[in-house]
Formats: sequence, C-alpha cells, structure tokens
Amino acid sequence: MKNTFGNSLTVTLFGESHGPEIGAVLDGLPSGIRVDEAFIAERLRLRRPAGAISTARQEQDPFRIVSGVFEGKTTGTPLAILIPNGDVRSRDYTFGPARPGHADYTAHIRYGGHEDYRGGGHFSGRITAALTAAGAILLDALRKKGIRIGTHVARCAGIDDASFSADPGQDLEKLNHAGFAVLDERKGAEMREAIARAAEDGDSVGGVLETLVLGLPAGAGEPWFDTAEGELAHALFSIPAVKGVEFGDGFALADIRGSEANDALILREGQVATTTNHNGGINGGITNGMPVIFRCAVKPTPSIRKEQRTVDLAENRETAIAVAGRHDPAIVHRARAVADSVTAIVIADLLAQRYGTQWLA
Amino acid sequence: MKNTFGNSLTVTLFGESHGPEIGAVLDGLPSGIRVDEAFIAERLRLRRPAGAISTARQEQDPFRIVSGVFEGKTTGTPLAILIPNGDVRSRDYTFGPARPGHADYTAHIRYGGHEDYRGGGHFSGRITAALTAAGAILLDALRKKGIRIGTHVARCAGIDDASFSADPGQDLEKLNHAGFAVLDERKGAEMREAIARAAEDGDSVGGVLETLVLGLPAGAGEPWFDTAEGELAHALFSIPAVKGVEFGDGFALADIRGSEANDALILREGQVATTTNHNGGINGGITNGMPVIFRCAVKPTPSIRKEQRTVDLAENRETAIAVAGRHDPAIVHRARAVADSVTAIVIADLLAQRYGTQWLA
Amino acid sequence: MKNTFGNSLTVTLFGESHGPEIGAVLDGLPSGIRVDEAFIAERLRLRRPAGAISTARQEQDPFRIVSGVFEGKTTGTPLAILIPNGDVRSRDYTFGPARPGHADYTAHIRYGGHEDYRGGGHFSGRITAALTAAGAILLDALRKKGIRIGTHVARCAGIDDASFSADPGQDLEKLNHAGFAVLDERKGAEMREAIARAAEDGDSVGGVLETLVLGLPAGAGEPWFDTAEGELAHALFSIPAVKGVEFGDGFALADIRGSEANDALILREGQVATTTNHNGGINGGITNGMPVIFRCAVKPTPSIRKEQRTVDLAENRETAIAVAGRHDPAIVHRARAVADSVTAIVIADLLAQRYGTQWLA
Amino acid sequence: MKNTFGNSLTVTLFGESHGPEIGAVLDGLPSGIRVDEAFIAERLRLRRPAGAISTARQEQDPFRIVSGVFEGKTTGTPLAILIPNGDVRSRDYTFGPARPGHADYTAHIRYGGHEDYRGGGHFSGRITAALTAAGAILLDALRKKGIRIGTHVARCAGIDDASFSADPGQDLEKLNHAGFAVLDERKGAEMREAIARAAEDGDSVGGVLETLVLGLPAGAGEPWFDTAEGELAHALFSIPAVKGVEFGDGFALADIRGSEANDALILREGQVATTTNHNGGINGGITNGMPVIFRCAVKPTPSIRKEQRTVDLAENRETAIAVAGRHDPAIVHRARAVADSVTAIVIADLLAQRYGTQWLA
Repeated sequence: MKNTFGNSLTVTLFGESHGPEIGAVLDGLPSGIRVDEAFIAERLRLRRPAGAISTARQEQDPFRIVSGVFEGKTTGTPLAILIPNGDVRSRDYTFGPARPGHADYTAHIRYGGHEDYRGGGHFSGRITAALTAAGAILLDALRKKGIRIGTHVARCAGIDDASFSADPGQDLEKLNHAGFAVLDERKGAEMREAIARAAEDGDSVGGVLETLVLGLPAGAGEPWFDTAEGELAHALFSIPAVKGVEFGDGFALADIRGSEANDALILREGQVATTTNHNGGINGGITNGMPVIFRCAVKPTPSIRKEQRTVDLAENRETAIAVAGRHDPAIVHRARAVADSVTAIVIADLLAQRYGTQWLA
Repeated sequence: MKNTFGNSLTVTLFGESHGPEIGAVLDGLPSGIRVDEAFIAERLRLRRPAGAISTARQEQDPFRIVSGVFEGKTTGTPLAILIPNGDVRSRDYTFGPARPGHADYTAHIRYGGHEDYRGGGHFSGRITAALTAAGAILLDALRKKGIRIGTHVARCAGIDDASFSADPGQDLEKLNHAGFAVLDERKGAEMREAIARAAEDGDSVGGVLETLVLGLPAGAGEPWFDTAEGELAHALFSIPAVKGVEFGDGFALADIRGSEANDALILREGQVATTTNHNGGINGGITNGMPVIFRCAVKPTPSIRKEQRTVDLAENRETAIAVAGRHDPAIVHRARAVADSVTAIVIADLLAQRYGTQWLA
Repeated sequence: MKNTFGNSLTVTLFGESHGPEIGAVLDGLPSGIRVDEAFIAERLRLRRPAGAISTARQEQDPFRIVSGVFEGKTTGTPLAILIPNGDVRSRDYTFGPARPGHADYTAHIRYGGHEDYRGGGHFSGRITAALTAAGAILLDALRKKGIRIGTHVARCAGIDDASFSADPGQDLEKLNHAGFAVLDERKGAEMREAIARAAEDGDSVGGVLETLVLGLPAGAGEPWFDTAEGELAHALFSIPAVKGVEFGDGFALADIRGSEANDALILREGQVATTTNHNGGINGGITNGMPVIFRCAVKPTPSIRKEQRTVDLAENRETAIAVAGRHDPAIVHRARAVADSVTAIVIADLLAQRYGTQWLA
Repeated sequence: MKNTFGNSLTVTLFGESHGPEIGAVLDGLPSGIRVDEAFIAERLRLRRPAGAISTARQEQDPFRIVSGVFEGKTTGTPLAILIPNGDVRSRDYTFGPARPGHADYTAHIRYGGHEDYRGGGHFSGRITAALTAAGAILLDALRKKGIRIGTHVARCAGIDDASFSADPGQDLEKLNHAGFAVLDERKGAEMREAIARAAEDGDSVGGVLETLVLGLPAGAGEPWFDTAEGELAHALFSIPAVKGVEFGDGFALADIRGSEANDALILREGQVATTTNHNGGINGGITNGMPVIFRCAVKPTPSIRKEQRTVDLAENRETAIAVAGRHDPAIVHRARAVADSVTAIVIADLLAQRYGTQWLA
C-alpha cells in the first residue's frame, strides 16, 4: 500500500521537507483512547535535533490534530496529525548534483524529474516527525495496557552501550526520559565525543539501535508473510538510514549450534517461558510471550561536508559535491524515537488483527 | 494479509506438513508467460533434501498446476499449484513436548489448541516447496527480461564462502546449477564436513545466505513503508529460521563513516552508476540500477537429537525432549532455493506496481 | 486484491470451467470452528443444476478440504477447498464466435488472447461452486452465533414471490431447505413454468434475489468506503449475472419523502430499534441491529439457443451464433446459494475486523 | 482498508463536520500530472449548496494542497488536500435525540459513545468536499487521456430527466457546466419546484443519479471480486444516502429475456462493439469498450423539520425530534459532483492496476 502501513490499524504519511506541512493519518484506532498532547510533544522533543551534535535547523514541531479526537479521546475515525514546516531555507537547495548516499538520484528516476528535490522532499527525515507523533499515541495506549517499548543506541561509532540489565523495565523507564538514549552514560559520553569528532572532520557516523518490547502477549503474528518479524522489519526499514534488522541474536545465530540457539522451555509461575531468549521473543513468526528484542543497523548520515564525486542530474555530467546546509553528523540517537513509534504502530496492528479494534482501548 | 504477500502480484500459501496437499496461489500474473514445468521441477530439486547432510524424508514433489495455465502459458487468472504430501509418517509426531526453537508453543497459543501439530503443521518448512514452485515461475519470467537472481551460502558453521567475483553474472549461472550453492567449492566441502560433524553430535548448524539481483532497473520501490528493503525483508522473514536481513554492507555500515559509506555517483556509458555498492543497490527505499544485494541470517535447525529441557503442552509440566524423526542438521543450503523464489516474487510485484501487470510478459 | 476478497478474513478463488480442479482458499478463519462436510455438500446441492429447468451437466462436486482443518475443526491456518471438474465436454467449445452477454470478448482483451476460453474459463459460473463451499463454512459458523442468512427468488420472469412474513426466522428455515427458494410455493411453480417456456423458446429469463440477515449486531461497517453496503455490494457483483444491488427499499427510496423514508427509532425491551426498515438495517454504512435486507438484480442467462449476431474473435469478422452445449434457461434460483455464501463471507469479515479473528469461534 | 479505497491508487478520507479541517490523501498518483486548482475549485462549487433549495451554510471550501505537488504538477508522492471548516455553528447540535435516517445511533454503537456527534461528525456529507476535491484531480487527468465522466439527476421527486442523447459527449460537456445537472432544463425546473415544495412542508425528496463514462478502454477490471462493477459499487455506496447501484439496464434486466438482454457484437471501424448497451459497458466484470453507465439511488435527506419519533441516546428514552439547524431538502443534485469524483478515482485505480502508475500521466 505504498506510503501506508498496516492491516487493521494503518498509518499513512505525507509531506515534503520544504512543503507547507507534513502529516500522518491513523485509521482503525480504537475509540476512547485518551490522547495526551504533552506526551506527543515529549516524543517529538526526543526526536528533535539538539546541541552541538545535531543540525542547527530549529524544528518546533507545533503539531495539530485536525480529526479523530473529540473531548480529548480518539473517536475511532481517522486521526490526522499535521506539523507545519517552519524554519525552511529552500535557497540552500537547488537541483543539480545528487547527494551520494541520499535518494536524490532514485527519486529523480522514480518520479521522472517531477520530485520536490528541496531538502530531500518526501524522502526527508523530516517526515519522521509525523511518524513519531502518530506512533506516540499508540506508544501511550500500549503502555497503559502493560506493553512497554524502548530503544537505546546499542552502538555508535564503534562504541558499544551496555546491554539491557536484569531489570529491563527500569531500563526502559530511564531510556524514555533520556535525551541521548544509552544504558551506560559513560558510553553515551564517548559516543557524543566521537560524533563531535566526525562533525569536525566534515564527516558522519552510524550505529545500531536496539529495541525492547516488554509485556507483549504470546500469539501475535502469522505463520507466513505477516510474521511478527516480517511486519516489524517491513516498517523499520522506513526509518531513514536503516540497512539491517535482526531479531534476538540475529546474525550471531548463524555461528552457533542448535543446542545453543534453541531456547529451552520451562514453566514460570504456571506460564510457559524460556530460559534464554536467543530467538528474541518470536518463534515461527509468532510472539512467545518473552521480551521481543531486535536491532536496526543505521548507516552514517549521508550529508557530509567532505567533498565527494557525484553526477549533476540537471546537466548529466560528473562533478563534485560538498554538502552545504544544516545536517546531522549522526542520526542514530534521534532515530530511536522513530523506532519506538514504528514499533508501537506494528505491535498495535498485530494485536488489533488478533483481538479486534477495541482491544487497545 | 496474513498468509498472502504482495500488492499487484500476490502469493497465498496453504497446507500442512502432514495434510494431503500443500499449495500456493499466484494472482496478478501477466498473461502469456510460458510456464516451464521442467524449470519448476529443477528448482524444487535444488530445495529438496539430498545426501548425508539432509533429512531422510523422500520428497518427490510431483506438483500439479490446476488453474491459470492454458496451452503452456499463464492465462493471467489465478494460478494454483498443488503438491501432494507423499512420504509422511505421522506416527513420528504426537502432541506433547514442544520442540524448543520451533513454533510448537506459539502455534498452540495462536490457534488455541486447534493447530495441526504433526510435523510442525502449517509452520513446517515443507510449505516452502509450494513457495519455491510458485516463485520459480517468476524467476524464469524475470530471467527472460534480463533480471537474474541467485543465492549462495555465504557462511555456514563459521566458514565463509568467497564473495561474488568481478563477473557476477557467471557466478549466478554457476550457483543456479549447483546442488550446494557456494562460489568456492573447497569452502563448500568444508561446510558440508562441518554439517556432517554437527549431525554426528546430534546437533545442527546455521549460516548466512547472500542473494544477488542483477539487471533490476532503477526506480522500483516506494519512499515510505513499501520500500524495496521493507518489501523484501517482509517476505524474506517467512523463510523458516531467518532471523536477520541486511542490505548492502548492512550492519557493517554502522561502524564506518559517511565518507566511506556513501557510494560516489559517476556516469558509465551515459548512465548514472556508483563506484561502490555499500548501499546494496537501494537508496531511499528505491532501486538505483546497481546490483541489489542482501544477506539473511539463518539460525541452526531447531530439531536436534540432543536432549533439551522443554514443557509438555498436553500435560503442562516440564520435561525433556530429544527430537526423533527425520530432520536436517542444516537448512541453510536448502533455503537458498526458497530465497531465490521469495526474491523473484517481491521483485515481480514491485515491477508490476510500477509498470503494470503485463510488463513482465 | 483481484480474485481475493476481504480484510481480516479473506477468500481467494481459482480455477477454470474445463481445468482439472477449481478451488478457494479461506484465510483469517478462527480456529476451532467445526467443519460440517455434510452441510457443505447440502449447500453445493442447492447450487447444483437440477431437473428440467437447468443444465444437463452433472456436477457431483466431490470437494476435498486439503488444509486448515484438523480433527474436524478449523485450525485457523488457510483452508483450501478443491473441487475436481468431472463431467467436462471441452469439444463443445472452440475459440471463435464470442457469446453475446458473456465475458468471451472482455476476457480476450483482458488476457491478450491467452485466456482459457473453454466453457467461459475462469469466468464460468462453475467457479461459484468453490465460492459456495467456502462460504458454507462461515454460514454454518454464523448460524451458531445466532446470525442467520437466507435468500429467496423475489422475482423471476416478471412473477413476484411473497415478501418475508412476520416470522422471518421461520421463512429462512424454510428457504434453507427448499430446492427452489420461494416463500410462496404457487409463485415458485409459476416461475418454473415461465423458465420452462423460455427454455422451449431457446431463450432465458432473469430475476431478483432478496437476501435477509437476522441477528447481526449493530456496529459493523465503516463510515467511508468500507461501509456495510459497499463491502456487500463489492462481493455480490461477483455473482455472475448480477447487475444491480439495492439495500432496504433501494431504488424505491428515490421516490418517497424523508418523512416516509426515515425509520423512526424506538426502544424495544430496552434496546434501540426502528419501527420500519426502509434503510435495510444499515445507517451511515454501519449496521443498526435491525435485519439487513438487500436485493440483487440477476440478468437472464446469456447462453441461449436463439441465433444472435456476434463477432468471430479468431477471424475478426461478423457472424451469427446459436449457443450449443448445456446451459441453464435461468440461474437466479441457483445463484441463491451463492448469494448466501457471499453474504456469509462479507459478514464474517466485518465482524472479524470489529471483534477480532476469534469472535466467530 | 476502512476509510481508504483503492489498490494501486488510493484515497484516504479524514475529518469531522465541526472539526477544524477535513481532508483527503491520494497515494499512487502518477508524477507529472498538472494540478489545476481552478478546476478543483469549480468542482467544489458544483457540490456546494446554492440558492433556495440548499442549506444556508456557507461553505467557501478554500482548500490547500500541502504535499505531493511541486511547481504545479503532481510529484507522485502522497498528495494531501485540506479544507478548513469555516462557518460551523456547533451550538446547533447537542448530543441526545438521534436523528432518524442518519448515522447518529450507529455511530454511537460503533464508537462506543466517543463519536464526535456534532453535525454528524465523520459521517457528515461535509466530508464529501474533500472527496470531490481529490477526485477532481483525477477527473481532469482522465479527461486529458480521452476518458470523460459526467452525471445527471436522472430522476428527482418522481420526475424523470431526459436520457443521454445520440451525442453523449456533448451531453457531458453541458452537464459539467450545469449548476443543476439535467439534460432537459424544463425537467430540471420541475425538479427544483418539487424540492422547494418539500422544503416548505419541512420535508425532503430523493432521486436517482446516472453516470456515464466515455472513452474507457476495454479490459479494465477482474473476473472475481475486483470486477469493474464491484469496485465502482464499493466506492459509490460511500456517497451519503446512496442505497442502490445498478449497471446498464440494472434491475430492468430481471424482467426481460436473454435474447433481449444480450448485446449483439459487431465490428465498427474494425473494432468490436455492441449494437445495444444493456450491460452498461461491462461483461464478466471487465469493461468492453462501450460507454460505462450506472445509476445510484439517493434516498431523501434524512434531516427534516417535521416531527419524528426517536430515542434520546443520552437519556435512553423515547422522544420526538424536529431537526433544527441548516440542511438540504434534497442532496441528489449536489451529490452528482461527488459521483463524478468517486467514479474518476475508481477508474483511475483500475487503469493503474492494468497499465501501471504512470499510464495516466
């Protein structure tokens, strides 16, 4: 469904980096969910660039919900959320040299030269503000049903964060209030230094996001195609710069034996549980009641000041480019808020399919 | 759409490991594609267990196409392909102890005790025979349009295969005739030895599949959600045991800088191309005309003879299990045929959406 | 989704009139529904041609359910039902003159000459056997939840049947056992005579089917697009020869005033009900708890012995045709079983979307 | 897909009658279509209430396209169109007595009391302004490809308009500039008088819309489920007050014989055509190249000043209501602009599925 995701509960994205407004429509929402605008604002704040290590573009994100909410609660009809694009400097962008690693060239081919090329247009990370806001509504609703979601920067510029602790619920609590989401603050400080160094070099760095979902009931997902992994990955690859997704031990599972990789089943307080969680809470495409855990590989921001070879699409000739304008030397720490929202949307849809639209209310 | 995948061109899977027949329905096919039953049989042969390193179950796979083909060509109406389940030994399976790493427990929860538990039922890798057959029709059609797909066992039991060479077309040609798909035969021999050793230990091993798509035009995919990566990953996670998917350099991109990760654009014979292919042929969710390359992490086969702790679902008590019956000490080498078919289905759908149903004819 | 219908619960049809087998796949079924094969056989019998007023083709319809059922109950995984084509006489059909009123010409254009033209191919009414069988499973499940569906031949060859009585539940009971479904047997006898007269003339007649749904809860359907009317009509137009669908008083509503057309609301045993049912149990696209009632216009069978002008598609020249082979002088009385099944599928899907997959179990 | 319609090309509606803004998102548009804002404004003007026979609510409809258009042309990315709700008088509406014939009660059940009840909320005919605007873009694009669409009030208050003439292209030209769309102006004057009389009586009238599509190529639609009729009807039932849809001769086909109903095929300038068009340009669910013609039954406006019995939903007791506020004594003449837009959306989607996204560009 192109720029729409979901089955029972869907999200549709629209907007361009330098157009008047971006937005999202959520359909299939339960009715009666309280919409906490302060919580949405807080989630947008976590996504927003801040400080020395992010773009200087000031994004205030004063969103408006124009439908689907009445007297503070969802009606159950489509909820449209709009965010005006404030501080845009279109003169920083002219059509010509494609920025390597960006979608400039593919957009040009896909849309036959009719793309809004300013600031990446519809491909801009800016659109994730609408996605983050839409997902925040579900993140909040899931939390009230005991399903908690959180993401940390598990790796950045070659520096590893700590792993989730024996009390992952407290870890999530901490992450959801952290501006730079790490479990080990010293590692976070090292990462920020590495980002700052890359920025000084006119370069950028990438990283790995790790997302944890607690409290998800067993039984969500389908055996083929609409597996829990397939649905999550489908949506997660929309987070700009994500180039890999792995569940549980992921690629590390390729190197161990079955006797190590299988999670032994036990009874814990009468419930089936597993002693380990190498499979990341999913077997056969269906959640098993254990924490769902996955990682997204985030490539380094393509916009760099360093000179790169490229092609001028307007003149069809080779040239060089040093990307001017405002941009981030890393986006992995901002993308965590997007990852949480995307996860919330997918999880809410999987549950709506199984238990009906009103389950989340 | 649950057990259905695709937008313009869809595939639906049905069947159980020990039911009378499994099958697939392809809808949205172009009319007039020649259906080469020998090619389908050959693809099924590549998926089939063979020799000492695979299950002793004899799968003859005598498929029947019961609709959608007339006088040797697709009509364009739904094509149903059926494969009877021949050599089944249901007495090997009784409901009780869940096999760790399998979907026994999640199926039990998802289907409330009504699942066909024999041999994994609808979750069985057996169903991939129907998927392989359905995809073979598209694999063949794509090849005739100059789009070639092939997969090798890039890693197995810790042993790496060689990378694609400077002549990847020839590599694909070789792979598509190889029973055990590797680029370096010596590495393949080592892998088979490692698999045999694991079998002797009553254990199993995993690996990594790497798939290459040559000849795919630029411009396929959507900016958000239905990205080329999202669509491919969505379907690839249906290959049993796949727990990770990465495009281009994937997780390795997390550790390098933007100046290294960006693929410089150049003109090659008047066409835009890139000097490197760290992004795996996809930018902003849309193909860029370079080879599309991705890797799937395949966990070790969960069925092992070694004793494991588990729960008896029939009696709700802890127990131990040593999985009897026929099973593979590795499936990564068989899954390659499935990966090719899944890739063909996704690529054909992306192209049908962009160019219309008949483009592939 | 082309030859697939539904959102949470889907049905996919495949097969050709003269191919080896036709079939249907139901996905999104609840698990644990008892599958009564005798009931399916009975529904197929009601659809089957019988006696002097129907085609002489002997359809035995010995269906096989090859997946999705275990120990007599649905598993919840895709249920595939197959019906072999037995008594086919392909020599009655050769490609050439298009049969007026049939899909011969449109199929030829749509599929570029690759269509299986024998007996109408994939367009044949024969395919409705698979649709009837698939729907029968849901018809039975809905009945067990108190939702009863039945259809009568409200009009045929200009003769009107009686309307539903003050005890519509008993009417449905009667209809569901009637070979020729009318409420007034004398009118039924008149209709059959009129059909026989048309057959003698080498001609055919049409009619109107009226379907009643009792016990459907209020609240099913969506405000825009996926309205209860829109979903039902979407599916009902797949019953071959249906050219009109109207709900409640339908076209008659165009000629009365609002004060007559509005159904006054009252309280009946504490529940909101309406005094009249001009709106057919649906307001604003959503069921209101009153009986849902609608009518389908069925055109006369296009296959007639009378000579008609047409075009020979093989030779691209004008010609005349007198349709040989076996065919019905009316299908309206057979289509009632199809209408019941289609209605059951749509209703089950609307309820699954609202209440979750397992609601019907 | 709930409040979304379409396969390759989709439209999503959102908004409430008394919310800040209503809107629509079109996705899957070709890139490079010129967007004529004056044409959209003209289409909105045709839908707008005007003069003595319509509501006094002043709808200025100053729409804004906030995405998907760049330098006057569609980019091909999602196009969002927003229309602020200006002249709203929410104090005219309080929750309590359900308006008979409206969705007040069904909305209350469907959304569990969380619905925005003011002015019908999301169920309001007001939302069709967004639908009309979105469809106008496609109406214009189709026209440029030679596919012309127009609707007339074929019947209103028991008065029949003339039928389409031997020069239907000129008829459409005339209709598309007419404020009150009839082919015979005297009949139109009679209809307006009848509407005015109903208004004086505090009552309302209904009618029948007839839509004609010229220039549509043969071959659009699918054999089962996504038939041209099924897709059109699915969408047309979203036009508020539509309770019946019939194609070609529709319900009248039930009363004639096959020899009369079948359209004889002939060759006209080397092309297959039919001598008559009883089937409305569609056979077997697929367009045959003849004009597509269908009719929608529009019930009388439910909002009337006359007193009616109803239930007070706030207090759960029987009461009476005389609907205050501004409303139309007929909407059939306004709905014609909506019918044109809905038709354009469905036709564009059918063509996009067959010929690819860019066909319309």
